Amino acid sequence: MTVEYRGTAFSGWQVQPDRRTVQGILEEAIERAAGEKCGLHASGRTDAGVHALAQVAHFDTHSTIPPDKWPLVLNNLLPDDVSVLAAKEVGADFHARRSAVSKTYVYRIFVSRVRRATMWDTHWVTPFPLDVERMRIAARAFVGTHDFTSFRTAGSSAVTTVRTVTEFAVDESAVAYDERGRIAEGEIMLRVSADGFLYNMVRIMAAQLERVGQGLIAPDRIREQLAALDRAAAREIAPANGLYLACVDYGDTD
Amino acid sequence: MTVEYRGTAFSGWQVQPDRRTVQGILEEAIERAAGEKCGLHASGRTDAGVHALAQVAHFDTHSTIPPDKWPLVLNNLLPDDVSVLAAKEVGADFHARRSAVSKTYVYRIFVSRVRRATMWDTHWVTPFPLDVERMRIAARAFVGTHDFTSFRTAGSSAVTTVRTVTEFAVDESAVAYDERGRIAEGEIMLRVSADGFLYNMVRIMAAQLERVGQGLIAPDRIREQLAALDRAAAREIAPANGLYLACVDYGDTD
Repeated sequence: MTVEYRGTAFSGWQVQPDRRTVQGILEEAIERAAGEKCGLHASGRTDAGVHALAQVAHFDTHSTIPPDKWPLVLNNLLPDDVSVLAAKEVGADFHARRSAVSKTYVYRIFVSRVRRATMWDTHWVTPFPLDVERMRIAARAFVGTHDFTSFRTAGSSAVTTVRTVTEFAVDESAVAYDERGRIAEGEIMLRVSADGFLYNMVRIMAAQLERVGQGLIAPDRIREQLAALDRAAAREIAPANGLYLACVDYGDTD
Repeated sequence: MTVEYRGTAFSGWQVQPDRRTVQGILEEAIERAAGEKCGLHASGRTDAGVHALAQVAHFDTHSTIPPDKWPLVLNNLLPDDVSVLAAKEVGADFHARRSAVSKTYVYRIFVSRVRRATMWDTHWVTPFPLDVERMRIAARAFVGTHDFTSFRTAGSSAVTTVRTVTEFAVDESAVAYDERGRIAEGEIMLRVSADGFLYNMVRIMAAQLERVGQGLIAPDRIREQLAALDRAAAREIAPANGLYLACVDYGDTD
């Protein structure tokens, strides 16, 4: 299944006792529809406040509901802030997490001198003018195969900290520029694809790109931070509410 | 003051007992900051679920807080879903509603075959492919000075039902088209300016444009609906959650 959710009112993906979680809400709906408990496996967890445009999850069921009817059936049982976009039958060898070959995240920053109520849970609203060209140069440093130890929150169970970033786009939609050509008001959208991401990796990268945009650090600093292999080299973390799991690719099997 | 809000968790603008309203929340914050009750007057009410990108409201106060400090002071007291973008001192003859010479509303439609969780409170999500070119032709019929009796919910106190629509833009941001060139997935943004709007006028116009886009009625039908001077000629109303008060103009005084 492909699943969309607004993360605002969820304590993240993973089931936790007495918490409203995306997995919990979906498992309940699937149980009601299928008449049996079906464990649900996602491409990966998302934290509280993080959104998904197209999370992928699989479950095993004996239900006779045709695969293409599942979105309609579940959307009638689900609350407004989670919806099933598509569903199809997959082979027993498919696993939403293990079969994934690539993932794409989007991170939305909005530059505004004042707080912005209509974007409070959908963007990181930052007051500082940002130089997008500097951010683009810095983002290029992430592309390629690197040890991302400096860009992850420790404590996660990843076997290796090496990941391959295949693309890192920095798009802008400016409302106003300042006298130095920086975005004084408007959106900057980061879009990063990799074979996998470490815990908090996108939010830590986004925080450093914002610092580059502000002029607090040089674009070259990213390479030094990567080489340091130490989270202390990149301490900041961008807020959860600007982050969207945008796409999960499964290569030929999709 | 210019005020932004996400209307989702508000029972509209106007103060009501035991309801969370934008006016109520703002008046509380102003009273805390000014140390006195200051009645707040908006350019107009907005209904439950309707958003504002730039509502304008004025109040009278003896406070010595400098006008340009009010956004910072109030934003520290206000919840996430309402923020003050700007404030300035105005003359005693200024009235947020009576001095307004023009208003602009945006209405956001998203076409998607399935329900979309990340847009549940920010767009009207409709499953039907829409022909934007037909919608543009129909929208032109609204431009000019007309009696909008067919496009208002009765019971409002407006003295006259004649309004002048100065602009009606239909912009698209399509993700996918169908074989007939209609938007099968993507956003259509209506942007309409007038010297004033009757109650529910934008939502009733949006509903008819969506019907034109679907092909249920011809673009010419809008002129007949206007001429009918009867709400029965245009019964449908688009949902509140796609509507944004985008701008209020005060001519020279702004």
